[in-house]
Amino acid sequence: MQEKTSYKPGLDGVIASETKLSYLDVEAEEIVLRGYDLIELAQNREYLDLVQLLLQGELPKQQERSTLEQELKEEYELPDDFFSLFHKLPKHTHPMDALRTGISILAGYEQHLDERGEEQIRQIAVSLLAKIPNIVANSYHILHNESVVAPRQELSYSANFLHMITGKEPTETEASYFDQSLMVYSEHEMPNSTFTARVIASTNSDIYGALTGAVASLKGNLHGGANEAVMYMLLNGKTTDGFRHLLYEKLKKKEKVMGFGHRVYMKKMDPRATLMKEALRELAAEKKQEELMEMCEAGEQLMKEEKGLYPNLDYYAAPVYYLLGIPIDLYTPIFFAARTLGLCAHVSEQYANNKLFRPRVLYTGPRGLHP
Amino acid sequence: MQEKTSYKPGLDGVIASETKLSYLDVEAEEIVLRGYDLIELAQNREYLDLVQLLLQGELPKQQERSTLEQELKEEYELPDDFFSLFHKLPKHTHPMDALRTGISILAGYEQHLDERGEEQIRQIAVSLLAKIPNIVANSYHILHNESVVAPRQELSYSANFLHMITGKEPTETEASYFDQSLMVYSEHEMPNSTFTARVIASTNSDIYGALTGAVASLKGNLHGGANEAVMYMLLNGKTTDGFRHLLYEKLKKKEKVMGFGHRVYMKKMDPRATLMKEALRELAAEKKQEELMEMCEAGEQLMKEEKGLYPNLDYYAAPVYYLLGIPIDLYTPIFFAARTLGLCAHVSEQYANNKLFRPRVLYTGPRGLHP
Ligand SMILES: CC(C)(COP(=O)(O)OP(=O)(O)OC[C@H]1O[C@@H](n2cnc3c(N)ncnc32)[C@H](O)[C@@H]1OP(=O)(O)O)[C@@H](O)C(=O)NCCC(=O)NCCS
Ligand SMILES: CC(C)(COP(=O)(O)OP(=O)(O)OC[C@H]1O[C@@H](n2cnc3c(N)ncnc32)[C@H](O)[C@@H]1OP(=O)(O)O)[C@@H](O)C(=O)NCCC(=O)NCCS
Repeated sequence: MQEKTSYKPGLDGVIASETKLSYLDVEAEEIVLRGYDLIELAQNREYLDLVQLLLQGELPKQQERSTLEQELKEEYELPDDFFSLFHKLPKHTHPMDALRTGISILAGYEQHLDERGEEQIRQIAVSLLAKIPNIVANSYHILHNESVVAPRQELSYSANFLHMITGKEPTETEASYFDQSLMVYSEHEMPNSTFTARVIASTNSDIYGALTGAVASLKGNLHGGANEAVMYMLLNGKTTDGFRHLLYEKLKKKEKVMGFGHRVYMKKMDPRATLMKEALRELAAEKKQEELMEMCEAGEQLMKEEKGLYPNLDYYAAPVYYLLGIPIDLYTPIFFAARTLGLCAHVSEQYANNKLFRPRVLYTGPRGLHP
Repeated sequence: MQEKTSYKPGLDGVIASETKLSYLDVEAEEIVLRGYDLIELAQNREYLDLVQLLLQGELPKQQERSTLEQELKEEYELPDDFFSLFHKLPKHTHPMDALRTGISILAGYEQHLDERGEEQIRQIAVSLLAKIPNIVANSYHILHNESVVAPRQELSYSANFLHMITGKEPTETEASYFDQSLMVYSEHEMPNSTFTARVIASTNSDIYGALTGAVASLKGNLHGGANEAVMYMLLNGKTTDGFRHLLYEKLKKKEKVMGFGHRVYMKKMDPRATLMKEALRELAAEKKQEELMEMCEAGEQLMKEEKGLYPNLDYYAAPVYYLLGIPIDLYTPIFFAARTLGLCAHVSEQYANNKLFRPRVLYTGPRGLHP
């Protein structure tokens, strides 16, 4: 009756969508973003340029960039009363759950929730890109009984984000590595969270809902949750030897080691990881934390030798965030804030050329029973 | 480079999952639920039996059924303070958004959020099945400045749900049709919301997150949102002639008519719609609202003649809910409450045999640009 041959668990290798946004060209080892190489972009541009590129189709001219920056800054503030809701959340609410709740609540304030036009969605995207860093940083502060850190207009987008997190004005180097991390996290073809957002949007549901679902997806430790798991492993390892030991133990127990492997690269190094590794090397030198770099490299070496597995982005982003003084619980929410860009671009693309996602199943249960 | 031939927009006809839970056998016109015909179940059993069937694999014996009922009733109450959050939501928050927020917040109270074992997930499912009707009914009351209606232990599960919505104790007939509607909404293979929940769960994210995403999916008017849209159409039509006229106008403007069509049945009548049509006939006679029945049949006839399209479940569930005195805004949240059952069963099945969902894309953008 049903053919099993065509079934690919996890949709491994199955084309789920047409897109003009990005493509992982594994052969060429290139992450293509609207025709550009993401790594070249991350070396030569800033996150704001990628916002324009993904939402509008082209890199911004000087003037367009200032207009966009202004537009973003005007949208930083959250509705009055918004944070009072966070004061009422149970104190051990997970930061990703707080973020999920925050985006879900925000929908109630949106005047254009029912519109699906391209320009309308772009405006909502800009508003979300402005507000989500604020929610990420300040929901954390509130759940930790700390004061809210208001956004500062005179800082750049990324410097302000980092400032809201740490409460300190970052140095130029810090802001620039943080910005670079946001770029490499911004968009990556069709990972689970992006897929989730497109699946939801395909029912003609709104963009807030699509993003709420994407937060839930990214929380999982097989996806975005991996960056936090990596940092806890490094801290548990304590020293290079300790870390090596810990990894051997995990492999012995056949546990998955977070920060390694990727559905699409799998047996190659994620080029974003290579970039973050360079960032880590420089930050570690500047902050005299060379052992952290050493540990990471030892882990990379070990996993290659033992399992033929390569680090993914999360493996090197985690220690970079650690050296930037970011609380570990915020690594995945920051990943989400950065990815908001790609998610909004995908949702917009889905609306513009929609077909409801509704697959079938391979039924393996019984038949012919009667109640 | 990439092959377009195998790309099915919307994953139309693509097998995404193996499942023992349900299967739409279009040839046999049967909705299979763990081996039973859903329509036979809906005619002979109650929603609680389906809870046991889907979560545990078999229909309950008398004793098991009482134990389950007791377990559910013990979980009715929401945490203290829970509703105070709803008082703070913007007053025009959409009921599905309130529900989404509610489930997202509830995660913060869950003691076993990180566990994925089958029995643990079953217990969380029971708790969600107990609490979601309470959230659905009372978030609506709060957003409408009405008093909260507390659950009543002495009523059956469905009678209590309906009572929390209307504030009145339902008659036996009313409770029984409502229960039947919950059964036909409970599970339906791999619609968009179920797919969303499984995709999210596949990152090893928690069940609250999976359900939050499913609410967002079900809200869309190509999916669950259709039942509300149907009722507004019927009310706008006013009379049988008016409704016919309204449908002709929509067809002339090439608008989609909500409540018709289905990815899998499409050119056949949804058997659940047939069952709800019978319920509507009896309720309409009892409540002397025969014209509503007449309108619906006229619409069905017209759509068959003009477009060869048949009603789906939402088309006949909507007027049934109307005659049960349910506010229109609650039709989709109730659909969700009923579907919580199928969703939890699917999430549990996903955890038990997981593979991360991570498909690929067909890239149609430019290549070779440099920043
Ligand atoms: C990302 C990931 C889910 C992709 O996996 P996938 O395409 O579904 O492939 P699988 O998980 O089935 O892995 C294939 C094989 O490699 C092994 N493997 C993959 N990643 C591994 C890891 N991080 N540690 C140990 N073994 C791993 C699997 O155990 C499996 O081996 P088997 O065939 O002997 O069972 C997987 O690599 C993983 O879980 N990584 C850790 C989590 C992580 O870092 N996620 C962030 C991704 S950006
Ligand atoms: C459910 C639904 C999304 C399934 O659709 P699908 O498998 O993606 O198929 P499509 O939407 O591409 O429809 C196929 C064709 O039938 C037509 N069609 C389908 N449903 C229609 C409807 N309700 N009214 C008018 N035309 C409809 C489409 O316009 C399309 O015609 P075309 O090929 O000339 O463009 C679709 O039938 C629909 O939108 N129905 C209304 C919403 C609804 O009732 N949803 C609840 C489902 S339980």
